[in-house]
Amino acid sequence: MTRPGGRSARVRDAVHEAVVDLLAAGQIDAAIPKIAAHAGVNPTSIYRRWGSRDHLLVDAAVTRLRTTSPIPDTGSLRGDLAGWAEGVERSMRDRHGQVLLRALVATMAPDEEPIEYLKARGDDLQRTLDAAAARGEPVPSVDEVLDFVLAPLYLRVLFRRPVEPGIGARLVERLLTAL
Amino acid sequence: MTRPGGRSARVRDAVHEAVVDLLAAGQIDAAIPKIAAHAGVNPTSIYRRWGSRDHLLVDAAVTRLRTTSPIPDTGSLRGDLAGWAEGVERSMRDRHGQVLLRALVATMAPDEEPIEYLKARGDDLQRTLDAAAARGEPVPSVDEVLDFVLAPLYLRVLFRRPVEPGIGARLVERLLTAL
Repeated sequence: MTRPGGRSARVRDAVHEAVVDLLAAGQIDAAIPKIAAHAGVNPTSIYRRWGSRDHLLVDAAVTRLRTTSPIPDTGSLRGDLAGWAEGVERSMRDRHGQVLLRALVATMAPDEEPIEYLKARGDDLQRTLDAAAARGEPVPSVDEVLDFVLAPLYLRVLFRRPVEPGIGARLVERLLTAL
Repeated sequence: MTRPGGRSARVRDAVHEAVVDLLAAGQIDAAIPKIAAHAGVNPTSIYRRWGSRDHLLVDAAVTRLRTTSPIPDTGSLRGDLAGWAEGVERSMRDRHGQVLLRALVATMAPDEEPIEYLKARGDDLQRTLDAAAARGEPVPSVDEVLDFVLAPLYLRVLFRRPVEPGIGARLVERLLTAL
């Protein structure tokens, strides 16, 4: 997707795009010079901006996975979560989404700090839940949304179980029924 | 754990043990000769038995993860699932369990066949659910058990969120309440 913000944003998008392309091509171990060449940028600008291949990979994966499943503002929590979950479901059925999720998990060494990824997702969700609460709707916690909706979708991809059409919306119904 | 069955079983246990030790020591890429040396067996017997490092790694991870969280027979579905979930919770808080889960996920290439691991777990669970149904208890589907209990526990480890004490039993209660 295109993003505003001039040259810096264009470089970021080009580099993210290169990472996704190389991962989708099975080149999980592509080093920064190769990524830079594929993106048509100078390797030094990648080192300067991201510091390491792992940081770049996580940033690219988080950005892509978030932007492919934004949380809509439909006026009801059910609609917001269903719209989001359908986006997640779609990206989990898409090869790019699958390789990014795998790369994200594989890149996280067991001893690192908790990954920013779910935190960023959690912040998006918290805003949606706060808005619903302000409308007087009963709302789950972010952890409940992750447990009921995101975890089952991600586990299907990580363990290569089929992502059934409509599963995202069904998981949201399960969550709201449990409230 | 020890397993009956003479030399063949001892070799299997020694090799599995070596895989777990090397992974826990951060040697994710240890090749078969190194694993064989660590296990004190001949590399050819590893190649003959498992064919490839990936098959060995998946077999070792599946065996360990299953044996560290057996499903007890307590006479009630709630007790069976809670006992199992507490075992999974424990192994997900244990460094060996964490590295094995990560190695299992990382080893599965996106294009491979659906992994046997969840199938093996699913068969264990199905037997427990069938026994409960035969006692006249209301039972969930295996997919519901995986979605409600296993997925949230595994996602915590894969994304390095804390595995809260008692979360396993709470997830089982959530599942049974939803029935």
